Amino acid sequence: MNDPVLVEVMRGTRVESRHGGALVISDASGKRRIAIGDVERPVYPRSAVKALQVLPLVAGGFADALGLGHDEIALACASHSGEPAHVETAEAMLEKVGRDGGCLECGSHWPLDQEAMRAMAARGETPRSLHNNCSGKHAGFVCLACAEGHDPRGYIRPDHPVQEHVRRALVTMMDTPHEAANRAIDGCSIPTYAVPLTALATAFARFGTGEGVPGDFADAAPVIRAAVAEAPSMVAGKGRFDTRVMERFGDRVFMKTGAEGVYCASLPDAGLGIALKCADGTTRASEAIMAYALARLLAQSAEEESFLTGLAEAPLHNWNGIEVGQLQPASSLRGAFQA
Amino acid sequence: MNDPVLVEVMRGTRVESRHGGALVISDASGKRRIAIGDVERPVYPRSAVKALQVLPLVAGGFADALGLGHDEIALACASHSGEPAHVETAEAMLEKVGRDGGCLECGSHWPLDQEAMRAMAARGETPRSLHNNCSGKHAGFVCLACAEGHDPRGYIRPDHPVQEHVRRALVTMMDTPHEAANRAIDGCSIPTYAVPLTALATAFARFGTGEGVPGDFADAAPVIRAAVAEAPSMVAGKGRFDTRVMERFGDRVFMKTGAEGVYCASLPDAGLGIALKCADGTTRASEAIMAYALARLLAQSAEEESFLTGLAEAPLHNWNGIEVGQLQPASSLRGAFQA
Repeated sequence: MNDPVLVEVMRGTRVESRHGGALVISDASGKRRIAIGDVERPVYPRSAVKALQVLPLVAGGFADALGLGHDEIALACASHSGEPAHVETAEAMLEKVGRDGGCLECGSHWPLDQEAMRAMAARGETPRSLHNNCSGKHAGFVCLACAEGHDPRGYIRPDHPVQEHVRRALVTMMDTPHEAANRAIDGCSIPTYAVPLTALATAFARFGTGEGVPGDFADAAPVIRAAVAEAPSMVAGKGRFDTRVMERFGDRVFMKTGAEGVYCASLPDAGLGIALKCADGTTRASEAIMAYALARLLAQSAEEESFLTGLAEAPLHNWNGIEVGQLQPASSLRGAFQA
Repeated sequence: MNDPVLVEVMRGTRVESRHGGALVISDASGKRRIAIGDVERPVYPRSAVKALQVLPLVAGGFADALGLGHDEIALACASHSGEPAHVETAEAMLEKVGRDGGCLECGSHWPLDQEAMRAMAARGETPRSLHNNCSGKHAGFVCLACAEGHDPRGYIRPDHPVQEHVRRALVTMMDTPHEAANRAIDGCSIPTYAVPLTALATAFARFGTGEGVPGDFADAAPVIRAAVAEAPSMVAGKGRFDTRVMERFGDRVFMKTGAEGVYCASLPDAGLGIALKCADGTTRASEAIMAYALARLLAQSAEEESFLTGLAEAPLHNWNGIEVGQLQPASSLRGAFQA
């Protein structure tokens, strides 16, 4: 395994499990501030780049033309929990182009939020595509297709005008090829392209600053960041990591999780982008790494640092509520920030 | 990271995630057949040793005296899914000593089985300790306490006569210290003791053969293995890995998963024990490693090998049912079995 251990899972006084990974933090020119592990190895960013995938909708003026609000733009960037507000907002987006959930091609699953799922079960309901955690992004794709006068059917295919738009936006932000050779299929059936973590960090530094990107994207990025800062409950959900951190820090940070342990963030004030992947794909570790990085780079007071450190070193409780262990940043992660 | 990559998660044509780990296969004397990774590093076995924790109940004659059947002994070894049959069986065990679910000290959680959970939600029910995946083991502990004339209250504490019994059984099977220095608290609040994987492999070779263990344990082990072989749906649940494999192979294998990526198994005919831990604690990888080992050591026909290889190389489907990738044994795992 090439990647160093970045997070340890403690039980009692011993390390019970270990998570390796890679992390890179750079500015918009690609100049690295911090790099740990193999940051050139291509990774599938999965949902971590949803905010970049929304750029064509906003930069093209379609979000304005359709009157999409903060909630709706934030939901287009979301891996949401399937709470009622998420489902209603996705439906409202589709109504603006005269469509409904039936045109979504993301597939169905029960809400990630367990309370929402049990409430549905109690009402005798079954999941629809609107409950899919990606339904906001897909509603955005349908909006883009309809606003441009395309038939939305097949909008998940690489050769559909919507995915061509999205692919060009990703290439623009990352300066790295997105083509059949590095393409796979995401959980919601759209293409996902393997790219180096370094390209993701640069892209999110650009997304946070507008540096090095064409004018229409430079104008659109702050609109998207502001929408998520206004509606952080839309981008994930109750108690979720992205929502909790952005509720606390507002537009000082934009962050987005992806499946299989990927995480990206923009720190506009510092002019930095963060990209990381937990090698084994585990979310508890990718969140702990991101929280540790933010504690070092974003916190401006002891209270803010304590909030983020509390997430990086999250306690583990058992079914009786007894604290049985905790996460902790490993020495290689701590060391990289001390250098 | 000391441990080699044992399982790769493919998406399209690329490795998306990697799981490191350690694996040891030995006979009842501790002679190693195969060892990969740091097999001397102590790990918390968690639920993987539940069958050993049942030894005092059976070896002491209490299971017989109370008339515990196959289902009940199998459930005492279980991390069950909380299906109705599991809950009813745990309740039936407690009734045999005049108790009910109120005396269980494992804590409550919703059933692991999603259908069972949603059915409960639809009925307006909330989870009780009987739904805890460890409720069968805990019911066994209460049976042991009552049958011996002890007050069961506090049976989760290290100094309760029940946990003293359990600790001595683990020491007997493993020949390795179980004391305050290597003790932590398990998810269900009983003690869990960090022990080398080598000790676990030896213990499960002994559990499968009776070699090197005192007569009462040598008599009890086949009773426990036979109970699980008769009732594999009790030890896990519908569609779960342990259940599927033991439904197929009967008493030719005993296997048990534990939290944080631990897995143990007995191969009675070969006289071998298997112990492994996925370093990052991920179940998909620990199952794939076990399936690969069983494909090499247990399968006696092309059909059996194909069944197990299908589990080791499980396909991954997305929300539209499209096959987007698969698990695969890494070269270090394959190589260890070719040597």
